[in-house]
Formats: sequence, C-alpha cells, structure tokens
Amino acid sequence: MTEFKEPIRDIAYLAHIELLTPKPDESLAFFRELMGMEAIHSERQSVFLRGWGDESLYSLKLTEAKHAGLGHVGLRSFSPAALDRRAQAIERSGLGIGWSDGDYGHGKTYRCTDADGHAVELYYEAEKYVAPPSLKPSLKNLPQKYAARGASVTSLDHINLFSSNVDGDSAFWQEKLGFRLSEQAITDQGSKVTAWLHVTNKSYDLAISLDKTGTKGRFHHAAFKVESSEMVLRAADIFLDHGIFIEASPSKHVAGQTMFVYVYEPGGNRIEVCSGGFLILSPDWETITWTPQERKKGLAWGNPLPATFHTYGTPVINP
Amino acid sequence: MTEFKEPIRDIAYLAHIELLTPKPDESLAFFRELMGMEAIHSERQSVFLRGWGDESLYSLKLTEAKHAGLGHVGLRSFSPAALDRRAQAIERSGLGIGWSDGDYGHGKTYRCTDADGHAVELYYEAEKYVAPPSLKPSLKNLPQKYAARGASVTSLDHINLFSSNVDGDSAFWQEKLGFRLSEQAITDQGSKVTAWLHVTNKSYDLAISLDKTGTKGRFHHAAFKVESSEMVLRAADIFLDHGIFIEASPSKHVAGQTMFVYVYEPGGNRIEVCSGGFLILSPDWETITWTPQERKKGLAWGNPLPATFHTYGTPVINP
Amino acid sequence: MTEFKEPIRDIAYLAHIELLTPKPDESLAFFRELMGMEAIHSERQSVFLRGWGDESLYSLKLTEAKHAGLGHVGLRSFSPAALDRRAQAIERSGLGIGWSDGDYGHGKTYRCTDADGHAVELYYEAEKYVAPPSLKPSLKNLPQKYAARGASVTSLDHINLFSSNVDGDSAFWQEKLGFRLSEQAITDQGSKVTAWLHVTNKSYDLAISLDKTGTKGRFHHAAFKVESSEMVLRAADIFLDHGIFIEASPSKHVAGQTMFVYVYEPGGNRIEVCSGGFLILSPDWETITWTPQERKKGLAWGNPLPATFHTYGTPVINP
Amino acid sequence: MTEFKEPIRDIAYLAHIELLTPKPDESLAFFRELMGMEAIHSERQSVFLRGWGDESLYSLKLTEAKHAGLGHVGLRSFSPAALDRRAQAIERSGLGIGWSDGDYGHGKTYRCTDADGHAVELYYEAEKYVAPPSLKPSLKNLPQKYAARGASVTSLDHINLFSSNVDGDSAFWQEKLGFRLSEQAITDQGSKVTAWLHVTNKSYDLAISLDKTGTKGRFHHAAFKVESSEMVLRAADIFLDHGIFIEASPSKHVAGQTMFVYVYEPGGNRIEVCSGGFLILSPDWETITWTPQERKKGLAWGNPLPATFHTYGTPVINP
Repeated sequence: MTEFKEPIRDIAYLAHIELLTPKPDESLAFFRELMGMEAIHSERQSVFLRGWGDESLYSLKLTEAKHAGLGHVGLRSFSPAALDRRAQAIERSGLGIGWSDGDYGHGKTYRCTDADGHAVELYYEAEKYVAPPSLKPSLKNLPQKYAARGASVTSLDHINLFSSNVDGDSAFWQEKLGFRLSEQAITDQGSKVTAWLHVTNKSYDLAISLDKTGTKGRFHHAAFKVESSEMVLRAADIFLDHGIFIEASPSKHVAGQTMFVYVYEPGGNRIEVCSGGFLILSPDWETITWTPQERKKGLAWGNPLPATFHTYGTPVINP
Repeated sequence: MTEFKEPIRDIAYLAHIELLTPKPDESLAFFRELMGMEAIHSERQSVFLRGWGDESLYSLKLTEAKHAGLGHVGLRSFSPAALDRRAQAIERSGLGIGWSDGDYGHGKTYRCTDADGHAVELYYEAEKYVAPPSLKPSLKNLPQKYAARGASVTSLDHINLFSSNVDGDSAFWQEKLGFRLSEQAITDQGSKVTAWLHVTNKSYDLAISLDKTGTKGRFHHAAFKVESSEMVLRAADIFLDHGIFIEASPSKHVAGQTMFVYVYEPGGNRIEVCSGGFLILSPDWETITWTPQERKKGLAWGNPLPATFHTYGTPVINP
Repeated sequence: MTEFKEPIRDIAYLAHIELLTPKPDESLAFFRELMGMEAIHSERQSVFLRGWGDESLYSLKLTEAKHAGLGHVGLRSFSPAALDRRAQAIERSGLGIGWSDGDYGHGKTYRCTDADGHAVELYYEAEKYVAPPSLKPSLKNLPQKYAARGASVTSLDHINLFSSNVDGDSAFWQEKLGFRLSEQAITDQGSKVTAWLHVTNKSYDLAISLDKTGTKGRFHHAAFKVESSEMVLRAADIFLDHGIFIEASPSKHVAGQTMFVYVYEPGGNRIEVCSGGFLILSPDWETITWTPQERKKGLAWGNPLPATFHTYGTPVINP
Repeated sequence: MTEFKEPIRDIAYLAHIELLTPKPDESLAFFRELMGMEAIHSERQSVFLRGWGDESLYSLKLTEAKHAGLGHVGLRSFSPAALDRRAQAIERSGLGIGWSDGDYGHGKTYRCTDADGHAVELYYEAEKYVAPPSLKPSLKNLPQKYAARGASVTSLDHINLFSSNVDGDSAFWQEKLGFRLSEQAITDQGSKVTAWLHVTNKSYDLAISLDKTGTKGRFHHAAFKVESSEMVLRAADIFLDHGIFIEASPSKHVAGQTMFVYVYEPGGNRIEVCSGGFLILSPDWETITWTPQERKKGLAWGNPLPATFHTYGTPVINP
C-alpha cells in the first residue's frame, strides 16, 4: 500500500467564481434565462447569481469589464483557524496579496494568486442563503425551489483554469491549499498538460490545463452541474434553440467520466453544463496518469474535442 | 392465428380536448407556467393552448364555466371522405348532433356524443401551427422551440373519460369510430371496468373507466406527455413546490406500462403527466384482459392508487 | 391546406430483418450478450433473435454467409387481402420474384426487390411469441421479461438501406408499399440523398441513403431501440468496455431527432442503438426537406458524422 | 453565523458491510444476478462481493448464518494514526472490544459496538481491487467494467441501523467516530426517531432509525447506488420480473431527497437501490430537523411508506 502522508484539509469547497463580461446584459440573460440561475443581488458593476441547489449564497459574481475572463476564484475554509493557516502558508510562498474585509455575503478575506497569476480569495465567514417567499422550497433541506427554467442548473461544479504553467499551478493548489491530484495528463517528458484536482469527495473541483498559446493567467471554463446526463442533452437543445454557440456537443470526458456540453456565453467565457462523475472516498487514491498515447484515443467514446479547446480562453487573444 | 377483420381506419388521432374551469386565471397559469404550454389564441371565454411538440394547432381549449369538466373531445379524420363515413355511421346510431362550420383552427365539424353523453367533435380540415419568430425552432422538423419551462410537456397524449356505462361507451368508440381495444379490466361477470382504446400505434389514446358514483358523462383526466420517466419525477417536484395537489405520486401503470403523476389543476380537473408506454404495430394484437384478481395486485410495482381515483371526476359531485 | 390523397395502408410494420455474417459465432455473441437479445430458434445456417419487447416472433434472422450484408427485409401486412394487393402491385412493376410457403414463424410470403436490388419479403400470417417459463413477464401486456443484459435493446426500430438510386428506391417503397416520405435530404438539383419513410406512426421505419461508392443494393444499418437517451449512452459504455468499434459516438440526429450510437458488429454490419424520435399522427404531414446548405450544419448539435457514414456499407467493398 | 467547532475527521468512508443470511445460495444469486455485483472471493461461510464502481475491494461480505441480520459495519480511517485515535476514544467509552489482525482484504482492525450493540470494525490498511482481464475497464480511472447485468448497482451507498436507542447510537457515531448529523426526525419531546449522519460529502452515509418493537441491535437496510432515478425504476422492474418482494415501490425520500426502491433479499434482509441525493460541502451545515407534524406529510410527493418500514428488521422477530 502507498506511503501515508497526513493531508492538509483546510479548504472546504469551491464557493464561487467571478467572471468578467464585456456584454453584461446578454451574459446576465444567458445565466438567468438559459442556465436557470437566480440573480439575488447587484452592486456597482456586478450581479450575484446562484443555482437553485448552491450551498453558497451565490456561485457566480458576474462583473462588467472591458474583456471577458476570470475575476477571481472564491474558496471557503473549514474554520477561521484553517483560513489563517492557509493565509500564512501562502504568505510564505510569496504569492500572497493580503487581507480585505471581504465582499457581498462573506467576511474577512485573504487574496493571492497562483503561480500563473489567477486571482484566488479565501474566507470562512459566509452568509447563508435565505430564499424569499416566492422561492421557498416545500422541502426545507433544499435551499431553494427547483428552478424549472432553461437548463435548470443545480450548482457550480468545478472550474478549469487555463495556464502557461500547469506544473507550477498544480503544485500551488496542492501544497498551499491542500487539493489532491486525482488525475493528470502528461507529456512524454512527464510535465503536466492537464491536472485534475479535488478538495471535496468529487473527483475534481478544479482543472488546470495548458494554454497552448502560452498566455499567462487566462480562464478556460466554469462548469455548472445538472442532475442527469439527460439534462445535459436537454441543455444542448436549449442552447441550440437560442442561438448560443456550442463549441463541443454533448459527450463524455475520460477524466472524471462526466457528461458535458460546452458553449460560449455571450460575453465570450466558455461555460460547461455537466453531470455524473464519480466520488473519491479513499485516503490512498493513486493519481491516474494519462499518456499522450492514451489521450490520442479522444474522449470516452473515441470522438475528439475541437482544437479550440486547447487555444480558446478568456480574455480572448489574437494569435 | 386470430380471425381477420378489416379494420375501420378513418380517425387519425386525438387532436384536442376542451376543458371547463371555474377558475380560468388560475387554470391558465397552471397550464402555462407549470405545464409549460403556450397560449396561442383566446376568444370569448376560451384560451387555446399547445405543448411545444403538439402536431395540432392546439391540444387544449380552456373555457371558463360554472363547473369544471369536459367541454368536448376533438378528433381528426384521415380525409374528408373518412369524416363523412364516420358522420353517417354515427347518424345512424342515433347519437349524432349535427354539423357546424367548426371552431378556431379547424373547419367543417360533426358533433355527437358517446353512449354516456361525452361530447365528441370530428373534423378533417385543420390549420397548421406556424411558430412566431420567438418560438421558431432551430430544427424545422419540430413545430416549435422546446419549452424549457415548468414540466415542459410535449403534447396531449391521451384522455380518460369517466363513465356510468363503460361497455356502451367502449362499443361506441370501437364500432363508430374505429378505435381498437388494447386492454381492458373486467368484473367477475365480464363487464368492463376500464377500457383502453387506441386509434394510433400508441397502446392507448383513450381510456374509459367506471364512475363508481354512477354519474353520467363525467371527465376523469387528460394526460400530457413528457419525454422520459425522469421528467415525470421532475414534474412532481415542480407541482410540489408550487402547492398543486398531487393525488397520485409518480409510479407506473400496469395498462400501457406508462409512468404517471396525477394532480388536480386549480379548476379541479385531474391532469396526468406521463411518459413511456409501448406501441402496438401488429394487426392482430389480442386484447389484454385484467381480472379483478389480477387488479388486486395494484400498480406495476404493487402499490395502490388512491380510492379517489374511482370516485373523483369533474364536474365534482357531492355524494 | 394540402390536397388530399387517399393513402395506401396495407403494410402494418417492419417485422424483421435478415443479416448475413461471415463471423456467425462472434455476431451471435454480440447480439445476445451486448445487445441483450434472445436467440429463440436456429436452423441450417441461421439463428433467430428477438428483443424483449419485439411484437414479432423475431426481429433478427442472423445467417452465416461469405460476406456481411442484408439477407432480406421482412414486412407484415394488415391482412391477407392487403398482402395480395401489394403482391399484385409489385408484380405489375416487374420487380416481383414470387410466392413461397414462408419461413420459420410466418406463412405464405411474397418476395421481391426494390429498384436497387434489396430483397423484400411480405407476409401476413405470423406466429406469436410465447415466452418460456424462465422469460415469462410478470405483467402480461409485455411479450417477455425485461432483458437486464448488455444494452437491453427493446426491439427493432428501423433499417437504413444503402442505395445507388435513392429516388428510385424511395418511389418503390412509397408507390408499391404505401410508405410515406416524412423527411428527405436533397442535392441542389433536387434528387434525394437520403429519404426517411414511415408506414407506422413512427417518424421513420426505413431510411434509404446514397451509397457514394455507387454500389448497388448494399446495407447501411439496422437500428434497435432502447427506452431512453440515457440507455444509448450506457450502450456506448458497454461497447467500449467490450472492444466493439464505435464509428459514431452518441449524439442526436436532425432527421427524426433520435439519439444514436453506431457500431460495427463483429461480422461487419453497422448497427445503431437509438432512442427518442417523434410520432407523426397528422394525415397531412408535409415532407421536411433538408438542403445541402442546411445539412452542412452537421448533426442536431452541430457536430459532424464520420465520412465513413457515406461510404461504408455491407458487403464491404474495396474502393 | 454558527459557532465554530473543530471537527473530528478520522474516518474516511463506509467501506463494507457484512450481512448474515439463512439462505446463502439464494442471497448470493440475488446480489450477483439481480443486483449485478461480482463475487470476488469466498472463504469458510462467506462470499465477498463488490459493485462495479466500489472503491473498496468489496462492499458486501455475505455470510451464512441461522438468522438474517447485520454481521458488522466496516469503516476505513484516513490514516494509521487516525485509526489509533478512534480506537483509543472508543476504548475510553467502554464500548471497545479489541484489536484483530483483520479480515480478507484488510489489515489490523479494531472492533467495537455502538450503544445499541451493532458491531463496527475500523481499519486503515486495505488491499486495492485489481480487476481480472475479463473485467478490466477500457478507462483506467474506473476500477472495473460497467456491470451490464440486473440492476447494475454501482457501489454501497449507505446503511440504516435499526435501534432501540437512536439518541445513544447517534451520539456514539458523532462523538467517537466524527460523523455529522445532517438531518433528524424527532418526537414532540425532542428525542430522535431517525438520525441521518455523514462522514463524507454525501448527505448521509449512515441512518439510524427507531425500532418500534424495542428490540436492540437489529439491522434496517443497506442501500446500493445506481447512476440515475431511471435506473431505480428499472431495478424495480427487474425485481418484479424475478419475484422479489417489493416492500416500497420507487419513490422519493424527504431526507436526502434520494430516489429509492426497497425489497427483501431472499435471506430476509431489506435492501435499497437508490439514486440522487445531494452533497454537503459547507463546514457549517445546520442539522435539518423534521417534526412529527412535518413527517405526517409522508414522502417527498406525499405518499406514505408501508407500516412495516418501522417494525420489520433483521433478525426477524415475532411480535
């Protein structure tokens, strides 16, 4: 059996993400009407949205900006002490930025970046969502009524960062934040092309993939989860009917074995609607490594992903 | 093999149903928001609605009235000649009422009643649905965009008439209209308790069941179809969240093997959301007969239907 | 409204298909273990198989032969008289071959070919399937226990003939057999590239597509139906796990809007597992025509079919 | 926000369960053929089985015995140190039994009972499953080929202990083993009728419910998971077709919002096939409490559970 190593378990989950959009109205309409999310608050240039099943107050902060891309990734710790431990570790790494009083819905926050420059915010204190009467669910173990609108996405599932330095970023998320490497795709020389990392029992909460354009700190996609593979297919029908560009039609990933459909929201950010995937419960899960040879086989059923999957990210650049 | 009998094949399908409601606004909101249907026209006390996949211009005519219940059943023939043949046969049976110029969306119409007094209208000439730009589907072999709202019902699937005379009604629909008896539930004496009849390849388009109160000409339910058993479960979640009374929670019928959920729409009419069921293609299908002994086993998986299923109909009566 | 034309309605449904295979044992194992069908009889070089929900005694006659391909297509008429009417019409067309006493499970049979040479057999008298005790279902309106094995296919859904003369074949099936043209793909000159035809309420029972190699009378594929899109995905997982070549991974067709997965069975014949699709109930359905421009968009969600889809058929030829 | 309390996180997951059966052959056939599990080993009176997706070497140890019931619950710790910490805490509680060298597939094991006498075993060292060639999956991030047989259960999901002392047992699992109370049903006096506890991100891994007969240490049920609600319905069809007693037909629980079907395996133990449910990621989830008043509403959609659900357990007793 594998050598035992005491895990860092200070981060509870991926709580929210901030996305930037040059088309705030169209992007908002997309997330509301087609994804089925609720806008619960807006201030300055931002609107805060949630899926009907999100545990966080919100899982998406949508902010008007000149270019599409990632604002920041919001992580919640297991405790105030855990937050301090992570902040100190990052401080020592030189990637720390510093503390703030927080943002809408959460308290004291530590801000930093990963090796490639993606902004990350950590906090513990968080406000719980209380549904207004019109959205109060009949069963109180759910946060909100089921959203029977558009793709009816349940919650934020995972995000994928586009990186010029997958090894460096992957090391940061593992060593400073306690994420574990569930799967990886490597080059013949052994450097990472994609890293799948998890901090919950989900097989991944975060993916980091190589930006073949070599640009630093871009965003690849955010994935919102639905309850079945059938709902992924339905989401594709809805996107088709409403003129949303489908970059990759519904199919199944090898890593995590999740069903997916990939589209570009009107602001340009790549969005995934996903379902399925497996849980990892074992403390001694051994990282699954996919070689270039194995990756040649394509997706789970042998079909390929479009070439843009390895070059398109936000902000959009002109090669 | 069974004796060959040349079938009457003059009726093409169940085109629409008219339901009466004492609560027109609440009923309309139910069919629009929770069932996901579109209101395409209104005149006088009626609103005409369709499911996104209905071939008919509309499958539901919702009419304000003092009491809930059936307005009429609308059937479409295969041809003008077929319409005349059926009208003449009914004329001879003494159940005919006569011809009219038709109603919104269809032409020359012959009106009659079945043995128990349920109103039936037959016509051939029908206007096709043309979706407005906002509902135009991206794939033109569908009549309309997929309705990603509420239960997103596809189309009218079948209706169930409540009858004091199942044998008489069943004979009328078979002999005068060419429906075939796919399944039946009988008493120990052999009279029908429920008759399931089909005129298309669906295992039933019409059910006629015994009204234990002995009242004549009442309505049992109308069933709208969704694309999977999962969507029936989802419909139940939506009804629950919106305070709609669920008379029978999702389960599976023996006859037709359809998944169902039964609710009362705000006006009081029983509505089913269903999926599945099988097709009957053979010309020599032998009617399946269910004895009282066999029916004691309950639904497909052994659970019972509520007692109200055999006594509650519209108009609602006080025993 | 469209001009009315009295339809020929003499053919009830596509009852079975005979497939030839140079690898009878491997093909049999594929249909039994991976498709989940039952072998109910064998004689000479043939094994007769059925899906758990097939109304026919069998839907597949698998026959050992030097090369893969189509043996014949088996159609059942609505009546003995309908059989004679069709036989006479075909006789007059010069494509008739003649009468035989029939084959395992069915009586008096008329054999002919379509314009491109695909063999077709028509009959009315057919033996019903009686499940042996081990396969007797608990609900007697099903022919057989649900086959919880492999892809658990329900029944034969449709077939696709590969043709050097789509216009000619399509005319034959419409004029001599009463099939109706639900959809078609045409060239800029208006000749058919693919014709989708139906004789039941299913949107198609038969497809005829252009063999770009120009070869006459080849076979494209047979499609077996499962109960949901989820089961199509599951079928792909099973094929993948058992080393079956997946030519086209699960996706959605434009015509008929069916979910599909395409594989080659060990003998080389292309097999589809499908679900969904819509019914056509209207007597005046207007054929949907897809132009080359529209077809450029690919499948329903925009992904393409592999090029082999237009050139690979059985028997396999060397270009 | 809620007061922060540093959680015990020493137990990784529910690894397996031992069930006793007086009908070993019939029980084995049930789990193999109808549940779709693999028997990977047998020694003395026990057979060891796994679902195709189980992370543990096996999730079920099936042991011949005079009466049905629970053998023991197997839990895996996060580390050797965590195992020692839990053993010491239990030792102090007076419920410890002692250490053994372990059992097939796992090492050094600490045995104890909970307050009501259910046997529990803790260990860290565990052998990984290596699929034989015939079961090797094509995608190596799965432990085994998908089992396309019977209900095709994925893995052990949770267990439910029947207890005369729900408060006591619930306190034991929380305080000694670090499980957290996600939901509870209480009496008007506030004592627990059912406790739902989780140690992973699943909303529950363990339920403890009141044995109304007052018997100590009985077993209520073990639940095996499938990938969708549709597969729960399919499982019910399979059980029906094979004469397995269905105690509760497919429906939806309020707690955890899981779809279920409950049957008695031939040895008498209650088995659930379940799907769905939600994850709990927040460190400050507040226990959901269901009052008797709220429980009166029945299951999620308002239908009741059979009365036997509160009295039938194994070993079976005569009231």
